[in-house]
Amino acid sequence: MFREKLAQDAALIQSHFDLVLSALDELDVTRAMTYATQGGKRLRGFLVLESARLHGIDAARAIWPATGIEALHAYSLVHDDLPCMDDDDLRRGRPTVHVKWDDGTAVLAGDALQTLAFELCVRPEVGNAEIRAELTLTLAKASGAQGMVLGQALDIAAETAAGPLTLDEITQLQAGKTGALIEWSACAGARLAQADPTPLRQYAQALGLAFQIADDIMDVEGDAEKAGKRLQKDAEAGKATFVSLLGLDAAKSRAAELVDQACAALDEYGSKAETLKQAARFVIARDS
Amino acid sequence: MFREKLAQDAALIQSHFDLVLSALDELDVTRAMTYATQGGKRLRGFLVLESARLHGIDAARAIWPATGIEALHAYSLVHDDLPCMDDDDLRRGRPTVHVKWDDGTAVLAGDALQTLAFELCVRPEVGNAEIRAELTLTLAKASGAQGMVLGQALDIAAETAAGPLTLDEITQLQAGKTGALIEWSACAGARLAQADPTPLRQYAQALGLAFQIADDIMDVEGDAEKAGKRLQKDAEAGKATFVSLLGLDAAKSRAAELVDQACAALDEYGSKAETLKQAARFVIARDS
Repeated sequence: MFREKLAQDAALIQSHFDLVLSALDELDVTRAMTYATQGGKRLRGFLVLESARLHGIDAARAIWPATGIEALHAYSLVHDDLPCMDDDDLRRGRPTVHVKWDDGTAVLAGDALQTLAFELCVRPEVGNAEIRAELTLTLAKASGAQGMVLGQALDIAAETAAGPLTLDEITQLQAGKTGALIEWSACAGARLAQADPTPLRQYAQALGLAFQIADDIMDVEGDAEKAGKRLQKDAEAGKATFVSLLGLDAAKSRAAELVDQACAALDEYGSKAETLKQAARFVIARDS
Repeated sequence: MFREKLAQDAALIQSHFDLVLSALDELDVTRAMTYATQGGKRLRGFLVLESARLHGIDAARAIWPATGIEALHAYSLVHDDLPCMDDDDLRRGRPTVHVKWDDGTAVLAGDALQTLAFELCVRPEVGNAEIRAELTLTLAKASGAQGMVLGQALDIAAETAAGPLTLDEITQLQAGKTGALIEWSACAGARLAQADPTPLRQYAQALGLAFQIADDIMDVEGDAEKAGKRLQKDAEAGKATFVSLLGLDAAKSRAAELVDQACAALDEYGSKAETLKQAARFVIARDS
């Protein structure tokens, strides 16, 4: 039931990408952009579409920022996979962009996907100018050197640090690296309706942390084929993770606790929030 | 006189960068961002500030998009200089970011500078939401896969093409690669005032092309020390340029003609447009 909903939203986002990207000239860079936006769970776009539905906002409007956040996520993956970053050959079960093309094409395609993300959030179709400006400003804060890029930079700094990170440091790192975009996505629905995003923010903060703990658990316990990417990377690199710091069992109970918190934050929405609550439960049960 | 004005605006932009970037955590990535935004002519930021003055817009508002467009320009240079792109060691007379730090830091710093560019254009200080949304949307169109990145992609495609580019193809390539951001910068003042940007657009289109022809002339005739970057790259790479296609003398007269056109486009503004006209003359007389 929930997986069907997720798949439906993913299909909606995919056809919107097709529409948007087919307007571009056919070149290696634009082909690489299309390739990089295919597949994936679309969890961030799903959060935009579902939080919008929760506020009575039509998918015809929400699809723009939903596709935008997926473009931003795709850019971060393309650049993260580069040899000078994480050096990954496999993503969503396929060769990464720099393997299929080359490093220069991957840099440019990622750059253009970031630009596209902002364009999709600020287009007239999204709503009035107040809404578009607010979505764009908060997206910039969530993804730049005070958000996602800060998390990535802390991650790189950790590699050359004297000892492994503490639990507090890992939590800060992950709040930037994955938390900020998940929070933005869940709050987008409230912003589209010019409503208070506080409950969705609380939901997303717990969800984002649970998501990352689940990622660390998958890195240890997961099946690389199902995950579509290389696993056990953190252990190989001697990196501290939630699992190495808490132990596997405590990490699992912490994730389950956070999912309960995430669900509780949405109680005021009543049964309308059921899909988002299911999403929180899904996040710690997924295998990819 | 004009060079003083340009230097004054450059100093204004520099102190605004200092203000904005000092709010970030101290990490290699943020240090690299600061480094990459130092120096340079600041022509694009100057065009924002001067076109704003032409419309009676205060520098306290215009400084945000002026700094934003320079952040965007800086991002494009940091990524362009990477080994997998143009592989340049020297920029503005100093080691490039990936030489001073490493490739990963250069990718991330460029990424965060692009994000910063959008943030600076959409911040509340810039004006009402209509203005901020319009500046941001037009910036995305000018810099993404239909603007600057398209120009860069065409440039890369030209390297593996069967023969050298024609004059039409080079003109299209440069309209994206440098023209789109110059046009956005010159139109920004009209957009800040919610006025018609048509005269400024005509000015900028002629100016942008003159700028690129002048760059090609400098690549042949210039002094690498004054330019602060490696020259004669195009000839070494066997690339078609305005000089190789038109010849040196014809390229010079074409640039001078374009400067006259740029100035004529601003006639309706009367003497208020004198600084922008001087900028057009400067563009073909500069040595860096």
